[in-house]
Amino acid sequence: MRILGIDPGLNTTGYGVIDASAARVRLVEAGIVRGGAGKSLAHRVGEIYAGVADVIESLKPESLGIEELYSHYERPRTAILMGHARGVIVLAAVRAGLPVTHYAATQIKKTLTGSGRAPKSQMQLAIQRELGLRSLPEPADVADALAIAVTHWYVGCRSPAS
Amino acid sequence: MRILGIDPGLNTTGYGVIDASAARVRLVEAGIVRGGAGKSLAHRVGEIYAGVADVIESLKPESLGIEELYSHYERPRTAILMGHARGVIVLAAVRAGLPVTHYAATQIKKTLTGSGRAPKSQMQLAIQRELGLRSLPEPADVADALAIAVTHWYVGCRSPAS
Repeated sequence: MRILGIDPGLNTTGYGVIDASAARVRLVEAGIVRGGAGKSLAHRVGEIYAGVADVIESLKPESLGIEELYSHYERPRTAILMGHARGVIVLAAVRAGLPVTHYAATQIKKTLTGSGRAPKSQMQLAIQRELGLRSLPEPADVADALAIAVTHWYVGCRSPAS
Repeated sequence: MRILGIDPGLNTTGYGVIDASAARVRLVEAGIVRGGAGKSLAHRVGEIYAGVADVIESLKPESLGIEELYSHYERPRTAILMGHARGVIVLAAVRAGLPVTHYAATQIKKTLTGSGRAPKSQMQLAIQRELGLRSLPEPADVADALAIAVTHWYVGCRSPAS
């Protein structure tokens, strides 16, 4: 099963695509879509939508995992801006017929490391090990997107029997 | 000049289209786009985008005015959800080549009534008078959208000489 994980942001949105089966989880492609820091909100919204739609179109994932809505309550400005990015990312998925599942940051951390409070460094190592990568995935948005994709596989997609 | 005003929301988005010139401001059409209360976020985002894109396609406004980003700081959940709606609304405008301008709630109230703290009833009367309507525009989302359209005309579009 091919899964897309997204770490949403108006300036930088990380994406990670994995192929997952009962036997293994493999990296297909990961990277970032840039909104254009400093550009207008309208410009960034347009760029993020076009970039994510392009990833979906070219890599043809079957399902989307994305970080949950309310993970940034303590920073309202960040949360509202992220809401704009999430809106157009979810729209790109809907228009491509992709189901969308939301995961809390704590659930992602717990799935990858066993602890909902794991520090970023531990998460990066877990992703590197899980996908058999030679180096740490960078920047952080890419590692986060891959962590969501892997969580989506283990929590939301893998059948209980496998 | 034909202007679209939008009061964004994931459950209900109000829209108001006016034709404005130095001589007068006239209502073209106003109404609401329903996201589908209780449906998934993905469903609502898709419906709001399609509905607003349809309004733009059929009524061909030249410019969009929308309520400012940070008017709902005190209610983070509402603000984040509204961010999703705003994201896809701004995207619909960008993809149709419409310029987008943002207005703070206080600026909209001040433009219509002279006071940034005017109550809702006073705003509705001001809109009714401004557009020469026989009855109050309802529901409130429609009145708010028309208030934003009129503000966009007076503050953002009308040439100083007119």
